[in-house]
Amino acid sequence: MRYIVTFLISIVFVSVAAAQMDSSAAIRKVMDDQAAAWNRGDIDAFMDGYWMSDKLVFVSSNVTRGWQPTLERYKKNYDSRAKMGTLTFSDLEITVLSKNAAVVLGSWSLAREKDNPHGKFTLIFRRFKDGWKIVHDHTS
Amino acid sequence: MRYIVTFLISIVFVSVAAAQMDSSAAIRKVMDDQAAAWNRGDIDAFMDGYWMSDKLVFVSSNVTRGWQPTLERYKKNYDSRAKMGTLTFSDLEITVLSKNAAVVLGSWSLAREKDNPHGKFTLIFRRFKDGWKIVHDHTS
Repeated sequence: MRYIVTFLISIVFVSVAAAQMDSSAAIRKVMDDQAAAWNRGDIDAFMDGYWMSDKLVFVSSNVTRGWQPTLERYKKNYDSRAKMGTLTFSDLEITVLSKNAAVVLGSWSLAREKDNPHGKFTLIFRRFKDGWKIVHDHTS
Repeated sequence: MRYIVTFLISIVFVSVAAAQMDSSAAIRKVMDDQAAAWNRGDIDAFMDGYWMSDKLVFVSSNVTRGWQPTLERYKKNYDSRAKMGTLTFSDLEITVLSKNAAVVLGSWSLAREKDNPHGKFTLIFRRFKDGWKIVHDHTS
């Protein structure tokens, strides 16, 4: 009996660990896709990583609310391929908070002709029917 | 039978809503206590709002890891009552992500003799046995 209980508990732990790995891998894929979209100059595809909602929150020096204003902010600030440069996400640390929520700490860097802006971000991801999406982005 | 099901479903919804209100109120209390501690010059008590763990993450221009280094950072940057000024948290938007996790968007402001530094923060709270604690702070 004791072995059965131990075995069942092990299955639960392994399942939880596997689910967390799945979540992490899915989130990493979203970010890989974002960087790839950015680096082919496709801001619309880059925006696929964000929750398409008026409730999306983007925080930098001020707060932008909603998917559409966030898209417009990116298009305004990066209105040429030269300004977009080559984006790299690095140092990703994904912490799964629950089945449907996670937080990602990471670094961003733009390699451009004349400069190399870079910084840190905190992202809150939530899992929707169509996958994991960023619902809150704090970039500095 | 249909009424009973409706009644039971209502109880579940009301319970979930009540739990979320409880979480929000508890988190707001942590932040009120933090501001009160700061404003009586007690950085140690202010730090009670943070997870006392090496895994605590504090992000501003760079990343500070761990409760103790975060405390030391505050004590170094705010080594006099004049530098601490009067802290106000405002515009708090608390989003409960799960039973044990929440995110808070807000504004901070320091009223000081000669200046008024201010900015935005994103906090990840988790619920522990001893209550809700900040596990990740991104301040800009």
